[in-house]
Amino acid sequence: MSQAPIIVLCRPQLGQNIGKAARAMLNFGLTEMRIVAPRDGWPNPDAGPSASGADIVLEKAQVFENLSDAVADINHIYATTVRKRGVTKQVVTPAEAAAEFQSNQGRSAILFGAERSGLETEEIGFARKILTVPINPDFGSLNLAQAVILCAYEWSKTQELQSPTSVDIDLPAPQRELDEMVLQLFELLEPTNYFFPPDREPTTRRTLQNLLTRPGWSSQEIRTMRGVWSAFRKGRIR
Amino acid sequence: MSQAPIIVLCRPQLGQNIGKAARAMLNFGLTEMRIVAPRDGWPNPDAGPSASGADIVLEKAQVFENLSDAVADINHIYATTVRKRGVTKQVVTPAEAAAEFQSNQGRSAILFGAERSGLETEEIGFARKILTVPINPDFGSLNLAQAVILCAYEWSKTQELQSPTSVDIDLPAPQRELDEMVLQLFELLEPTNYFFPPDREPTTRRTLQNLLTRPGWSSQEIRTMRGVWSAFRKGRIR
Repeated sequence: MSQAPIIVLCRPQLGQNIGKAARAMLNFGLTEMRIVAPRDGWPNPDAGPSASGADIVLEKAQVFENLSDAVADINHIYATTVRKRGVTKQVVTPAEAAAEFQSNQGRSAILFGAERSGLETEEIGFARKILTVPINPDFGSLNLAQAVILCAYEWSKTQELQSPTSVDIDLPAPQRELDEMVLQLFELLEPTNYFFPPDREPTTRRTLQNLLTRPGWSSQEIRTMRGVWSAFRKGRIR
Repeated sequence: MSQAPIIVLCRPQLGQNIGKAARAMLNFGLTEMRIVAPRDGWPNPDAGPSASGADIVLEKAQVFENLSDAVADINHIYATTVRKRGVTKQVVTPAEAAAEFQSNQGRSAILFGAERSGLETEEIGFARKILTVPINPDFGSLNLAQAVILCAYEWSKTQELQSPTSVDIDLPAPQRELDEMVLQLFELLEPTNYFFPPDREPTTRRTLQNLLTRPGWSSQEIRTMRGVWSAFRKGRIR
């Protein structure tokens, strides 16, 4: 059974926002949307264009007349609110909720309220926990799709989709190649006055070596730099 | 000095999207926006309404004609891309980047490309690292404000934590110093046959820029390298 949370939109007003929420979901691999009492009915012709290709989410979306029916089969319900209300429920962040979805037995769902007013107290009543995005206290103004995307994003982080860090940069070259590059540079600099005065020469060499060691250049990059040194060696500098 | 990253919008097309990005930033406490070559000029009457109250970010936004000027004083530049490109730079997630902003000495900035096309290869050339949101491989379609909000959100999550002890390493030089060093090298190489054949020249220049950007050299180190270039210029090479 999938641990992915179901996204439940309660009384959404604009079809556009439903589409944007679908897009936000699919971006991070969530596909199950439920829509409760959409103001303008369903299907809504404004939803598709805003979904920017996430039509599959809209096509599969289930529509319910009331929240009670929409969450009848759900085991763990989270209600999103911006501010803490006078409700005595545990409050979790999107990251904490995402970790819980992983370990929850049964299905989890996240409720999102109408764009203008958010969830009603009665709707929050269905939830065991409150999901709140920690937001700038002086300027909290997340729209529906943004709230959805942050929840979906945190969920996807628990999924270890494709880690972009695994797209790795080349290995640093073997030390010998680095040494040879550094030596080549030293040889080129010897006939110049770069190492003047002579008593500073050891320090200067060490500085250069450190500086060229730090990048961790690959074999290819080192060949490139040696190409630069060679161009200089050919003595065609103005 | 603030560790909060600066958000740099490169060639944004719609004022609306600039406003939405401002709103996304302020939601998570980011306030410094820089705008490079906005397609429709600046100020843009469409930006304010979309900012939904985040006008302070727009009012403080700085506008630049080119990216080079916009990042001249930045020490750590991150380029956002969706897909991996043929660029050998380290790739980090928003969460990893957010942790780095905390420990980076000096100012950090995140570059975002034009809505339709993203960052150009030349723009990515300014960055030492790539910031990629790990997204559904079958449906990746983040818009500008969504990409901005995920970065801002991850940054805000680090703000409750204790700032890690600063590592005793020199600041990477401001971007302007790096650019000047690279330009000096290009000038020196022009009279050589390094850039031969001519049709490879743009690629070769980019390769060199990337290679010299990666180390994150300090101002002192850059002066050292310029000393090396100057020694070559003096034409005393065998």
